[in-house]
Amino acid sequence: MRILVAGGTGKVGAAVVEALRGKHEVLVASRTSEYRVDVGDGASIDRLFGQVGTVDAVVSVLGSTPFPQFTDLTTDHFRAGIANKLLGQIDLVLRGRPFVADGGSFTLVSGILAREPIRSGAVASTVNGGLESFVRAAATELPRGIRINAVSPTVVTEALDVYGDFFPGFAPVPAADVARAFVKSVEGVHTGRIYELD
Amino acid sequence: MRILVAGGTGKVGAAVVEALRGKHEVLVASRTSEYRVDVGDGASIDRLFGQVGTVDAVVSVLGSTPFPQFTDLTTDHFRAGIANKLLGQIDLVLRGRPFVADGGSFTLVSGILAREPIRSGAVASTVNGGLESFVRAAATELPRGIRINAVSPTVVTEALDVYGDFFPGFAPVPAADVARAFVKSVEGVHTGRIYELD
Ligand SMILES: NC(=O)c1ccc[n+]([C@@H]2O[C@H](COP(=O)([O-])OP(=O)(O)OC[C@H]3O[C@@H](n4cnc5c(N)ncnc54)[C@H](OP(=O)(O)O)[C@@H]3O)[C@@H](O)[C@H]2O)c1
Ligand SMILES: NC(=O)c1ccc[n+]([C@@H]2O[C@H](COP(=O)([O-])OP(=O)(O)OC[C@H]3O[C@@H](n4cnc5c(N)ncnc54)[C@H](OP(=O)(O)O)[C@@H]3O)[C@@H](O)[C@H]2O)c1
Repeated sequence: MRILVAGGTGKVGAAVVEALRGKHEVLVASRTSEYRVDVGDGASIDRLFGQVGTVDAVVSVLGSTPFPQFTDLTTDHFRAGIANKLLGQIDLVLRGRPFVADGGSFTLVSGILAREPIRSGAVASTVNGGLESFVRAAATELPRGIRINAVSPTVVTEALDVYGDFFPGFAPVPAADVARAFVKSVEGVHTGRIYELD
Repeated sequence: MRILVAGGTGKVGAAVVEALRGKHEVLVASRTSEYRVDVGDGASIDRLFGQVGTVDAVVSVLGSTPFPQFTDLTTDHFRAGIANKLLGQIDLVLRGRPFVADGGSFTLVSGILAREPIRSGAVASTVNGGLESFVRAAATELPRGIRINAVSPTVVTEALDVYGDFFPGFAPVPAADVARAFVKSVEGVHTGRIYELD
């Protein structure tokens, strides 16, 4: 398969690229990698698909959300997280639709905070919850047998140095295990599934 | 109790006001009712709370989202639905925090599309999914014993004329039954709960 991995240079993304590379042609996109895209900018997504053409799968492993203390939380924090991780990934799906082959797939990334809150995590929870309901809805309406799933991991081992303190007592999962769920989505037959890793 | 009901003039909202009015002092807010507010405008929310002062409960029964056909769906449809029903209600919570009495509550409205998609419902699904995860997260961080819940109904009987065709085979619930869940949230002890009516 020919697979576009947006965010393939990140901590989780690198493991996903590693897992897919042996068997597939993998094109890595991000703001700084070979295929340039800023998912916050619709025109940039259109340029990316214009350059890449038809693919069998679009995989997204990108997104960041602010983690302010709850007392400092404002609607602008929600706007920022929504614009990046929620609308960025949704726009990748909406603009990418015509470029995915019949029977191809989208796989997005959400996260455990959709179902389990942590301190300072209200924006990330909101974004991840929205993404998961989006995936369940879009799965029923995508044309030409195109599938869509989301991978929803707990904190990954490789990110414990940065996020560990926010996840007291949460067992981390190695990025390689998270990557396996992306492979299941891309090579399998599921649609509308949320692969929970925790 | 002194209860602010934002959206208390709508189909569901009127039933909520009816259910609360006998026992409580109910202040109805919307773009056209006695207490004026447009939740899309933060300054207008601040003015509302400045006018109303301290309340024991803030209830929100407002929000609308576009229902375009999936083939016509763009990120702007998501932006509109998110600005109104998702960020509008979140902003009501964030700006309302200082005006809710110790042990008071917020009750928001989401909807069945968070968990069960319908045709043309991708925006509403995304918004409702985000709201429900927000409520679970905010419940863990609100100060002074302030609680927060969401009511998540299927289509209400009173709205069947408008939305009925979108809900084939879904059993509707009367707005009065939905209103009961709001009463449970306001007068009860729960927090972080999603009351599903379907
Ligand atoms: N790390 C965890 O423990 C964990 C757990 C659960 C869920 N997740 C989710 O998994 C996703 C990736 O996490 P991560 O830890 O791997 O993040 P990361 O290391 O910061 O990587 C983010 C990736 O996305 C790209 N990117 C960021 N903004 C972009 C934009 N606007 N347009 C295009 N590409 C963009 C980055 O590349 P450039 O900088 O070159 O653009 C990079 O490839 C996030 O959504 C995160 O919430 C992570
Ligand atoms: N109807 C259903 O079957 C159903 C089922 C599940 C969930 N829901 C949800 O329940 C909520 C209410 O639905 P409904 O059918 O009762 O809607 P509705 O009849 O259209 O009522 C909407 C209410 O919100 C107010 N409102 C709208 N925009 C506002 C804004 N920007 N600022 C302040 N107030 C605003 C309206 O008053 P003004 O016009 O005066 O501002 C009105 O009081 C919606 O979120 C809907 O998604 C409805």
